[in-house]
Amino acid sequence: MPRTAARGGPQTRARISQVATQLFLERGFDEVTVAEVAREAGVSSVTVFKHFPRKEDLLLDRADDAMDVLRTAVRNGGDVLASLHEATLRLADERHALSGLKDGSVPFFATVAASPALIARAREVADELRQTLADELAGAGSGSEEDADLLAAFFVAGYTTVLSETARRQLAGDAADEVADDHRARVDRLLDRLRSGFGG
Amino acid sequence: MPRTAARGGPQTRARISQVATQLFLERGFDEVTVAEVAREAGVSSVTVFKHFPRKEDLLLDRADDAMDVLRTAVRNGGDVLASLHEATLRLADERHALSGLKDGSVPFFATVAASPALIARAREVADELRQTLADELAGAGSGSEEDADLLAAFFVAGYTTVLSETARRQLAGDAADEVADDHRARVDRLLDRLRSGFGG
Repeated sequence: MPRTAARGGPQTRARISQVATQLFLERGFDEVTVAEVAREAGVSSVTVFKHFPRKEDLLLDRADDAMDVLRTAVRNGGDVLASLHEATLRLADERHALSGLKDGSVPFFATVAASPALIARAREVADELRQTLADELAGAGSGSEEDADLLAAFFVAGYTTVLSETARRQLAGDAADEVADDHRARVDRLLDRLRSGFGG
Repeated sequence: MPRTAARGGPQTRARISQVATQLFLERGFDEVTVAEVAREAGVSSVTVFKHFPRKEDLLLDRADDAMDVLRTAVRNGGDVLASLHEATLRLADERHALSGLKDGSVPFFATVAASPALIARAREVADELRQTLADELAGAGSGSEEDADLLAAFFVAGYTTVLSETARRQLAGDAADEVADDHRARVDRLLDRLRSGFGG
C-alpha cells in the first residue's frame, strides 16, 4: 500500500526520485510510466511533474548538485584551475554520485546506457553545465569571455571522458575501489592538460 | 510534377537532402513529413529511409564530411595540432558549411535552433566526431590513449563553441563577411589553448 506524503517539499521530491530510480533500475527506463512512479510514491502524476517536468530528470537528478559544485569552485576565488581540481578530487574522495564512484552505481550506468532518451538528456545536462560554468567564469572576470567559453567547454567535455571511463570499467566488472586510483589519475591529467595544454 | 530519379546512387541521396533541406527551411523541421520529402523528391519513403535512417540527418547531412576532415588532418602526420589548425582555417577560407560561414546559413541555424530533435541530433553527431577523432589520435600513436581522449574532447567541444558564436552573430544580423575575421581569431585562440593551456 503506497504511503501518502505532503506534496510540496524537498522530502516529497527526494521520495519521488528515490522511488522512480528504484523502479527504473529494476525494470528499465522505458518500461516504467510516470503514473506508476506517482502511484508507488503515493502522490499524483501532477505532483511528479511539478517536481520533475521531464521524466528523464527523475533519474538524472544530480544536475543541480553539479551546478552548485561548479559555482562554488569558481566563487572560491583564487586559481580557478586549482579550485576545479580540488572540487573534482573531493567528489572522488567522497565517492559522490557525481564522481561515478558511488557504490552500487552499475545498475544506474546500465540503465542510462540502455536508454537513448537518458543519453540525450545527459548530453543536454552537460551542455547546461558548460553554460553555467562559462557564465560563472566570465562573471569572475579573471580572463576574457572567449577564454571562459573555451575553459568551460574543455572542462565539462574532459570531465565527461573521465566519468565515461570510470563507468565503462565498472560496467566491465571492476569494483569502484579498483577504479578509484585510476579515476584520480585521470582527473589529475585533465587538470594538467587544462593548465599546460598538449604542446609540450 | 515530381521528377523521378534512380534510387540508389549518391545523386539521389544529394537530391533527397536538397529537397528536404529546402522544405525544412521554408516550413520548419517538425512541419514536414518524410512522406512529403519523398513525394517532392520523386522517390519512395523507403528510398528516403535507405539513405537517411533518421529524419534529422536529412538536414544534418555533413557529419560524414566532418569525419573526413578530422581523419585527414590526423593522417597527414606531423604536428596534429598544426594539422587541425590548418584544417579548420581552411574550412573558414572556403566558407565551407562546416565553418558556419557559408552564405545563406541563417535559415539553417534558425531551423536547427527551433527544433529540439535537431539540437539533440547535433549533440549526438558531435559525440560521434569526438569518438572518431579520439580513435584516430590513439591509432596515430603520437601520445597516450588518455591524451587522445582528452584532446579529442577538448577540440570538438571547443570548435562547437566557435561554431555557436559564429551562428549566434549571424542570427543576430551580422553578415558572414563581418563575422569571418573574428571566427578565425576564435579558431586561433582554440588551437593556442589546446597547445598551451590556460595556466600562463
